Amino acid sequence: MSVKMIVVGSVAYDTLQTPKGKRERALGGSAVYASTVASYFTKVGLVGVAGKDFEPAHVEFLKQHQVDLQGFDLKEDGETFHWSGSYGEDFGDATTHDTKLNVFETFDPVLPEEYKNAELVFLGNIHPALQLKVIERVNKPKIIALDTMNLWIDNTYDLLKEVVSKVNVLFINFQETLMFAKEKKLAPAVEKLLDMGPERIVVKMGELGAMSATREDRFFTPAFPIVDITDPTGAGDSFAGGFMGSLARHGDYSEMGFRKSMLFGSAMGSITVENFSLDSYIDLKPETIEKRYNQIKRMVTVE
Amino acid sequence: MSVKMIVVGSVAYDTLQTPKGKRERALGGSAVYASTVASYFTKVGLVGVAGKDFEPAHVEFLKQHQVDLQGFDLKEDGETFHWSGSYGEDFGDATTHDTKLNVFETFDPVLPEEYKNAELVFLGNIHPALQLKVIERVNKPKIIALDTMNLWIDNTYDLLKEVVSKVNVLFINFQETLMFAKEKKLAPAVEKLLDMGPERIVVKMGELGAMSATREDRFFTPAFPIVDITDPTGAGDSFAGGFMGSLARHGDYSEMGFRKSMLFGSAMGSITVENFSLDSYIDLKPETIEKRYNQIKRMVTVE
Repeated sequence: MSVKMIVVGSVAYDTLQTPKGKRERALGGSAVYASTVASYFTKVGLVGVAGKDFEPAHVEFLKQHQVDLQGFDLKEDGETFHWSGSYGEDFGDATTHDTKLNVFETFDPVLPEEYKNAELVFLGNIHPALQLKVIERVNKPKIIALDTMNLWIDNTYDLLKEVVSKVNVLFINFQETLMFAKEKKLAPAVEKLLDMGPERIVVKMGELGAMSATREDRFFTPAFPIVDITDPTGAGDSFAGGFMGSLARHGDYSEMGFRKSMLFGSAMGSITVENFSLDSYIDLKPETIEKRYNQIKRMVTVE
Repeated sequence: MSVKMIVVGSVAYDTLQTPKGKRERALGGSAVYASTVASYFTKVGLVGVAGKDFEPAHVEFLKQHQVDLQGFDLKEDGETFHWSGSYGEDFGDATTHDTKLNVFETFDPVLPEEYKNAELVFLGNIHPALQLKVIERVNKPKIIALDTMNLWIDNTYDLLKEVVSKVNVLFINFQETLMFAKEKKLAPAVEKLLDMGPERIVVKMGELGAMSATREDRFFTPAFPIVDITDPTGAGDSFAGGFMGSLARHGDYSEMGFRKSMLFGSAMGSITVENFSLDSYIDLKPETIEKRYNQIKRMVTVE
C-alpha cells in the first residue's frame, strides 16, 4: 500500500513531570504522535530525524503501527532532540526546563519519491522555513495542514504568514490565534487568519474542545471529559493525526467530512492524555476509537 | 394566559463604557434581561424592585413584551439599583466602578399567588438567601434554575451550596465553575458541582459557547460568532432567558429538549450583545430568533 499521508515534524525524547508522575526520556515529538495516531486510519509516512540514542524498541513501536519509515533519518551519530518540562495542577501550558535540539538542529526534510505524491501532508510544529521546504517539495497534495506555536509567531511572523498562505488547514491553539491575528476576541481573530489564505482554521482549546472555521461555516467539537488526565503532551499532535488520518480514510473533503474528522481528532487527543507519552497506543483497539468517537458525536447531537 | 415562568432578580440602571461607546443609566438587571428574552417564548412574570426614578418608558417596554408585572415592586420612593462599569478591548469581565444597591438592598421577593404555581423558575444572580426564599415560596415547579457569581462563592459559600442543592439547573461561568468546585480543570469541577445536587450544570464560556452537563450527558453549544460585539452586559441572563423560555415553550424536558434550549440560549445571548442594553429587543422579530437558532444548530450538525 502506498503512502497516502505524510507527517513532518520532530522526533523527540521528553523528560517530563505532571501532577501524576515523572517520566525520563519518554518517546515523543510531533511527528511521532501524529503518525502513530494517523496509522489507525491510513498508510502514513514519517519524515523526521533521530540520533544514535534512539532506541530500537521505539523504531519497533513505529513499525508495529505500520508507520512508513522511508523518510525517517536515523543518524549514526548525534543525539535525538530532547525536551524537558513540567505541567502544573491545571495541566495547562508546560514550563520548559531544557531543550536540546541535537540532530534536529540541522534537520532537512528530504522526501522519498513516493512521499511527494501523498494526498495529505501534515506539517508538525517546526520552523516555518522547514515547513516551506516541504510545501515546495510535494506535488499538489489535496490537503496541506500546518501546526505552529507562539515561538514562531514571535520570531518569524512574516515567514510564518507566507507559509500559512500556502496551506489548506491551519491548526493553532486559542491563545496563539489571538496572538497571530493581533486581536482580543476569537471571532475577529479567526476572520483575520482566514484572510491570510487557509481555507480552514482549526482552533484548539484544550479541555474546551476545538473549533473549525471556514468563510461559510463554524463547527465545534467538544473535548471528551477526561476527569483524570495523566499527561497532556502530544494532545494537539494527536488531534491533528486523528483529523488528517480520518480524512485520508473516508476521503470526504466536504464540510461534513471535515466535521467527522474534527470528532476523530478530539477522540484521539483524549485517548493520548489518559497515559504518559504514547502509552495509550501500545495496545489500542480500533473499537476503542470508534466508541470514543461515538461518545463525542453524541455530545453534539440535537435531534 | 397564566404565568408559566417566573424570573427573580435585579432591575437596574447601568452606566457603562465599552470599546464601542458609552451609555448612561441604560436599562439593565438580570430580571429585566431574562424576562424580556423569555417573553419571546412564553408567558413570563418578573419579580423585582425599582425606585421612583424608574422611567415609565421602561415599564412600557416590559409591558409591550407582555412581561407580567404583578411581582414587580415599583416603589414611590428610593432609587433603582445602579451599576456602573466598563469593559476592556477583550469585552471580558467588566470592571465595576460603582454599585448603588438603593431599593434593591431591602428587596424581598414576594410572589403573587399565581406565580407560586409557575412551571419554571429562574433565580437570577442575587444573594443566595433571597434565592432560597423564592425556593421556599413556590409549589413544586418542574424546573428551578439558578445563576450565581464569584461574589457569592467568596462570601456565602456554604449558603450557596445549600441553595444549589435544591435546584435542577445551575448556570455558572467557566472561571466560577473552577472556583466553586475548588478544582483546576473543567471535567472534575463539573463532577463536583453535580455532587452538590443539581441535575444539570450549564457552564457559560462567553465566546467559546456553553456546556450542559448531567451525570450521563455532555452537550456543547457554540456561541454565534459576533465579530462586532457592542455590549456584553446581560449575555448570561439572556442565555438563561432563552434557555428557560424555550423549555417552557416546547415543554420537552428530555436531554434532547434541553439541548434545543441550549441552542436557543446561545442564540439569545448573541442577539443581546449586538447592541447596547436591551436595544436588540426594541424591534426584534421572531424570525430573527429562528434564523439565529438554525445558524447555531448548523454549527453542531454532523451528518
